[in-house]
Amino acid sequence: MRHNVGMKRLDYIRVVLMEPSHPGNIGACARAMANMGLSRLTLVRPAEFPSAAADARAAGADHILKNATVTAGLDEALADCELVIGASARARTLAWPELPPPAAMRETLARKSPAALLFGRESSGLSNSELERCHYLVSIPTDPEFPSLNLAAAVLVLAYELRKAAGEEDGDDAEIKHNEEPRAAAKDMRAFYTHLEKLLELVEFGQDPGAEKLQRKLVRLFNRAQPYAREVRMLRGIFRAVEEKISGRKK
Amino acid sequence: MRHNVGMKRLDYIRVVLMEPSHPGNIGACARAMANMGLSRLTLVRPAEFPSAAADARAAGADHILKNATVTAGLDEALADCELVIGASARARTLAWPELPPPAAMRETLARKSPAALLFGRESSGLSNSELERCHYLVSIPTDPEFPSLNLAAAVLVLAYELRKAAGEEDGDDAEIKHNEEPRAAAKDMRAFYTHLEKLLELVEFGQDPGAEKLQRKLVRLFNRAQPYAREVRMLRGIFRAVEEKISGRKK
Repeated sequence: MRHNVGMKRLDYIRVVLMEPSHPGNIGACARAMANMGLSRLTLVRPAEFPSAAADARAAGADHILKNATVTAGLDEALADCELVIGASARARTLAWPELPPPAAMRETLARKSPAALLFGRESSGLSNSELERCHYLVSIPTDPEFPSLNLAAAVLVLAYELRKAAGEEDGDDAEIKHNEEPRAAAKDMRAFYTHLEKLLELVEFGQDPGAEKLQRKLVRLFNRAQPYAREVRMLRGIFRAVEEKISGRKK
Repeated sequence: MRHNVGMKRLDYIRVVLMEPSHPGNIGACARAMANMGLSRLTLVRPAEFPSAAADARAAGADHILKNATVTAGLDEALADCELVIGASARARTLAWPELPPPAAMRETLARKSPAALLFGRESSGLSNSELERCHYLVSIPTDPEFPSLNLAAAVLVLAYELRKAAGEEDGDDAEIKHNEEPRAAAKDMRAFYTHLEKLLELVEFGQDPGAEKLQRKLVRLFNRAQPYAREVRMLRGIFRAVEEKISGRKK
């Protein structure tokens, strides 16, 4: 049984936008949050809210906009948060503790207590006094030649890392999703290779002295595909059709 | 000394958008790409391009829009790509190999050869025949209750994971040894499948009404193996030997 404790902890996380100037960005942030399972949005002195532009860009994440908290100051926005992580695009000269997104989001989630992700203004980021409210800064790696992330893009990347961290706690692994269908068993693969070898003899392809080497190459190729049992049966059906055509049983 | 080999490999990656309907999304994708250091954008039958809306949303990533390739079909877009990763939001019933974003992007970058990230239409994603062009699918984890990612958001998440993977490679230098040998390019795989189809006709295997379905099964099997160029030449050599035997040129 899966308990989804990691996913439930996403409910502790609050996204705080500092003086967002474009209502469209607020909507896009709400959509990104909803995509990743975050729900609590706080807006500190938004230029315009509510707004039709925000609704449009939210693309259905109306519940987040409807439940958003609007505050007159940062103190009020962060009042119930025990951990504040500041998203900062700019390299800082001051020695703020800084973590890459995966580590920062794992740390945030591990707290199991109300935490805020604080995002600065589109134009000028966070002021020094606002940065001082943060326990950590998180910096999203970008191309130094084009570092300016859209506000919703920054929210999306951190929300995505939060969801990944939640998934890891819940036991999702990074493995290839396995299909339930059976792969061909080793003995079926051996029979397949024997059949293939006979077929190559029949059509006189790659015979001595290269035959053994050729066979090894084919083994490597087909093993790489890890064929399903059904696929091996299909290939052998093709081999039989070739044999029948050559023997003249099929005109 | 840092060589930035990982970052340089980002130049191999092509973002391919299938029939994007909103020019604003094209611009937002270009911005996301530029943020993460990707530069090669291909648009297959865009509804509108170039466009003022794309320029506006690109927010300065003009070089990407200016250098974007526009094609009339997917074949042309993927012609030089040895690996195609399809971004797919929907759960598939068919057995496509599927990787989570970090693993998929590490694999993509490790190849050191031209690769495409293929994104479907805003409304309807990728068709089955388009999905068959993909060696892997990558699925971005989202909240099942609000799974619909904006096109640029999907591009951003994968580009972000690519940049992280590049950073990891440049950080530790302890590179996994990858084979330098070239994989078969998409156009060579197409020629291979056409050849295979003719051969199946010749031996009267799985002809109508099952022919198309059979062909799709074979495409999935061989795509999964991601054959090297040399292997595809070898297989086609076998096909020719069968043809010659049947035609009587070889007794």
